[in-house]
Amino acid sequence: MSSISKDTRKYLLTAADIEALEGQEITHFLNPNAVRLNKSLGDAVGMSQMGVHMISVEPNHHSTEFHKHQYEEECIYILEGSGELTIEEDKYNVAKGDFVGLPANEVAHSLYNNGNETLVCLVMGQRLKHDIGDYPNQNKRIYRHNGKAEVVDYENITYPKTHTGRKEPSE
Amino acid sequence: MSSISKDTRKYLLTAADIEALEGQEITHFLNPNAVRLNKSLGDAVGMSQMGVHMISVEPNHHSTEFHKHQYEEECIYILEGSGELTIEEDKYNVAKGDFVGLPANEVAHSLYNNGNETLVCLVMGQRLKHDIGDYPNQNKRIYRHNGKAEVVDYENITYPKTHTGRKEPSE
Amino acid sequence: MSSISKDTRKYLLTAADIEALEGQEITHFLNPNAVRLNKSLGDAVGMSQMGVHMISVEPNHHSTEFHKHQYEEECIYILEGSGELTIEEDKYNVAKGDFVGLPANEVAHSLYNNGNETLVCLVMGQRLKHDIGDYPNQNKRIYRHNGKAEVVDYENITYPKTHTGRKEPSE
Amino acid sequence: MSSISKDTRKYLLTAADIEALEGQEITHFLNPNAVRLNKSLGDAVGMSQMGVHMISVEPNHHSTEFHKHQYEEECIYILEGSGELTIEEDKYNVAKGDFVGLPANEVAHSLYNNGNETLVCLVMGQRLKHDIGDYPNQNKRIYRHNGKAEVVDYENITYPKTHTGRKEPSE
Repeated sequence: MSSISKDTRKYLLTAADIEALEGQEITHFLNPNAVRLNKSLGDAVGMSQMGVHMISVEPNHHSTEFHKHQYEEECIYILEGSGELTIEEDKYNVAKGDFVGLPANEVAHSLYNNGNETLVCLVMGQRLKHDIGDYPNQNKRIYRHNGKAEVVDYENITYPKTHTGRKEPSE
Repeated sequence: MSSISKDTRKYLLTAADIEALEGQEITHFLNPNAVRLNKSLGDAVGMSQMGVHMISVEPNHHSTEFHKHQYEEECIYILEGSGELTIEEDKYNVAKGDFVGLPANEVAHSLYNNGNETLVCLVMGQRLKHDIGDYPNQNKRIYRHNGKAEVVDYENITYPKTHTGRKEPSE
Repeated sequence: MSSISKDTRKYLLTAADIEALEGQEITHFLNPNAVRLNKSLGDAVGMSQMGVHMISVEPNHHSTEFHKHQYEEECIYILEGSGELTIEEDKYNVAKGDFVGLPANEVAHSLYNNGNETLVCLVMGQRLKHDIGDYPNQNKRIYRHNGKAEVVDYENITYPKTHTGRKEPSE
Repeated sequence: MSSISKDTRKYLLTAADIEALEGQEITHFLNPNAVRLNKSLGDAVGMSQMGVHMISVEPNHHSTEFHKHQYEEECIYILEGSGELTIEEDKYNVAKGDFVGLPANEVAHSLYNNGNETLVCLVMGQRLKHDIGDYPNQNKRIYRHNGKAEVVDYENITYPKTHTGRKEPSE
């Protein structure tokens, strides 16, 4: 084995390594019932452009507040347990081996552990420099940019007609 | 001359072509005294990722409301006339041949025609998919994204502590 | 259940849905022994900005040619089976429940099924507009941009000293 | 005048300031007859995301090698003198007050001073993290990324059919 082996080992998290990670208990800032234990696998190996998290949600809790990202994609792969997935106004039972993918700006979602065991998921998402999130049940919008988060009630946003005729870039 | 000459001519605007452009009178949506005649040279030749405008401001008018872009760079080259440039709390007299460059998120500026003749400038700016602008004299922030513009009063923005420990991407 | 339920169902792939997906057999264009059955879960639900694939690699095959992305991040979560992971010059045994994350431009990797059963992994990666990939064992570089792929041998690349003093953007 | 006046003055380059800038003589790395004196107004005030240059080209010289940017937009406003503009296979006489805009990936161009006086232009362009340039008369392509420049002869580029069915992001 080469002299740089101590460096390359850091890109690998074995199942035992993951089990040993301490994780972080996160309560969503808009929903005290949305509580998860979050182990960021991506951060642990030095990734920064995507978030890759193993999350554990206990029975009778949500993973996050019902939300939609306008720019970032997010997806969920269920590793253990079961839950109730809400997409817009529809509800689906989900369990181990199921996948949910959320293209940007299409539908809001939330995930609730309605079972008796811990719900464990891989959650992956983009980490764009700019994103805008909507919390439809709270009538709030969050503007995220460069590590900052700014939250505004829908009723306080105005939509001016600004530079008439401004041509927007194709991207 | 080749068979595609009729196509390549469109990338060139001669001084006479520019003179003949009709232009658009734009009054800033937050400042009725900020009025300019705007000829978008960039749009006229099919550019979309940068704005390149020849603007004319009559005496006793501003070019725009005092503002700062958090993400987009902007610059001004004065072709004719003179004016008073405000950068933050400082004022400078500017005239033909002067250049003003505004790196993103550093200082707010405005330009006022305090002379007797039309002030004519080239104004160039990025057209990013996302930008955030501040109007410090109005206590307002504008979120621009993908052709949309959303305006909020500073007092209606909250800054929650969200995902503790979230690592942000390097860009 | 609401009238839009037929639309929201498409964001969910149950384990049975995934099992039923046909998949695509992909042989790496530079390595005839790198063969995988690829089910793109992300594409199936309409995601476009990240790739999320469930791949199956049979014994004695590689998943891809040994490579490094200069700009895109990639990661692997092993769902079934075992294999030998190569990172730069080091080799590691990996199995169900292990995670490998590859920050951009750090180390080259490959994954080989040295076991007796099918190796099944989730592979997630960014899909940037621009990426550059290196195949160190082939002395080749691939420039990917906007759906195009251009491959060049290292020995045919020159590194000119171009615009002296050009300041590069911070991003 | 406020206490920060010494800081805000730096965003302004008066005509006299510009005259006093030393500039940099740049010979294009692929064309010894393409020689310009380059004063980067943007760099001088701390801009980094756009290039804004005042260039001077002496009689019988080109400003740059005939080229096209695949991703960056570029434009030219002529301040003094006259020249011959080549766009693809067509030639146009240009002079003071004329504007040329080059949307990305449409046409190659060059500018030649065929007059008796110095040709002075403002040249503005994007500085994207990634760009690809073509030099059609040299049969060469330049890949620029993050401050690096890699040049390849067209004949050494191969276009493999890679990941069949890969869906590309919308941007």
